[in-house]
Amino acid sequence: MNEQTEPHSPKKYRVGVEAALEVMGGKWKPLIIYHLIDGAKRTSELRRLMPDITQKMLTAQLRALEKDDIIIRNAYNEIPPRVDYELTPYGKSLKPALDLLCYWGEEHLDKVHGDKSKVLEDF
Amino acid sequence: MNEQTEPHSPKKYRVGVEAALEVMGGKWKPLIIYHLIDGAKRTSELRRLMPDITQKMLTAQLRALEKDDIIIRNAYNEIPPRVDYELTPYGKSLKPALDLLCYWGEEHLDKVHGDKSKVLEDF
Repeated sequence: MNEQTEPHSPKKYRVGVEAALEVMGGKWKPLIIYHLIDGAKRTSELRRLMPDITQKMLTAQLRALEKDDIIIRNAYNEIPPRVDYELTPYGKSLKPALDLLCYWGEEHLDKVHGDKSKVLEDF
Repeated sequence: MNEQTEPHSPKKYRVGVEAALEVMGGKWKPLIIYHLIDGAKRTSELRRLMPDITQKMLTAQLRALEKDDIIIRNAYNEIPPRVDYELTPYGKSLKPALDLLCYWGEEHLDKVHGDKSKVLEDF
């Protein structure tokens, strides 16, 4: 007899930030989310913005973000077919935290390099 | 002749969030910083709060955070010798972003599990 309603006992968390990191943490997800804040992007656009990510890694990260309802995949009925990814309203709720991190990162580059414009492109 | 004043050309960043992630991103650093927000902790206390991290990984992450001026290592002249780690004022400047992530994570657990108290310990 299994009294669990879920197939496995659910994972336990010590602090909320653990759960947030599971969804949006790691090397690439925060950057992907950040780049989608200003609108839907195609895979090719994301790769241009993140030249160090492999196609395989990008695909895996997009799938994971889709599964967690952070982004949605839009397939357009066009010739040639077009696909892009955009933040869901839920995904957009991560914007304030990412904005703070972005601002912190710029201040950090000022601190380390004297002036962030030396190392920050398009600034 | 090398006209660079730095030994290598400095790494370029596209957005500030990349620089922030370099310092506080990844699987463990945000959690370590989060656990230090309420005060200095010894390595053994951090391991208790993060049972899944190995000693080797914890040591590596603490070194990296120390190098980036996010935490300092305090060695007390006691018998037996005592060492702990605490956030620097600079490290504390990450608190607002981590607070937002923590809050977001709790809301996420409510969304996924109906009620975060089912999976969040000490809640």
